Amino acid sequence: MTSPMKGIDHVAVAVHNADTAMRYYIDELGLELVGDEIADDPGVRLVYLAAGNDRVQLVAPFRPGPVATWLETHGEGLHHICFEVADIPVALAAITGQDGRPVFRGGRDRRACFLDSTPAGVNIELTETEPSLIPG
Amino acid sequence: MTSPMKGIDHVAVAVHNADTAMRYYIDELGLELVGDEIADDPGVRLVYLAAGNDRVQLVAPFRPGPVATWLETHGEGLHHICFEVADIPVALAAITGQDGRPVFRGGRDRRACFLDSTPAGVNIELTETEPSLIPG
Repeated sequence: MTSPMKGIDHVAVAVHNADTAMRYYIDELGLELVGDEIADDPGVRLVYLAAGNDRVQLVAPFRPGPVATWLETHGEGLHHICFEVADIPVALAAITGQDGRPVFRGGRDRRACFLDSTPAGVNIELTETEPSLIPG
Repeated sequence: MTSPMKGIDHVAVAVHNADTAMRYYIDELGLELVGDEIADDPGVRLVYLAAGNDRVQLVAPFRPGPVATWLETHGEGLHHICFEVADIPVALAAITGQDGRPVFRGGRDRRACFLDSTPAGVNIELTETEPSLIPG
């Protein structure tokens, strides 16, 4: 089987305050701030921090929603792994029971989707490798 | 500042049973099994699953220790991010208060080290990019 998972796009950390959380990653670990945007639909701020070609994403909710609820339960910490795929519907069709999962505008204007399976307790997101949505 | 963090080496998931946990990642997501080893000192089995050039590591403790304790508290789930560095002592010297953290034989015979800072609740490991320890 050739995997539709081309790589890990980012590892996400749910945080209360992205300005506070990014300081250690930038000032101490030397990661580079490469993105900072608002995703209106889920109601989160997304901050991207690069280590080489890899990325940590800080997710800071600014209104009630799934990530805010998760933070209340778990506190800050690792929230999900996001795999890169070429085409989300094609990737979903290859995974049992995931066909038709809702696709939304993820970070960087890319189509994205969360699986409803959480293998070994891990939230799994898929995102397409190229922006495919018109910003705005 | 040039970051000593060259990239993310792996994202680790603590699991009770690696044989069980790996099935979804391999059978459904199509990740490739690229490593399966015992780390005697921490007392864990380490399974590496590749997506492109990126890796998920399953960590399954086989005796009491920090990961077993973590599993009892948190249940299965994302456990740490491991960054690649060229040289652990050099990397530690650049991070406030981390000089002299204990270095151990990590997976794939590489020197590795956990920071004692957990920024935004995240356990951070460093590993060197090349094996530097004699197996055994």
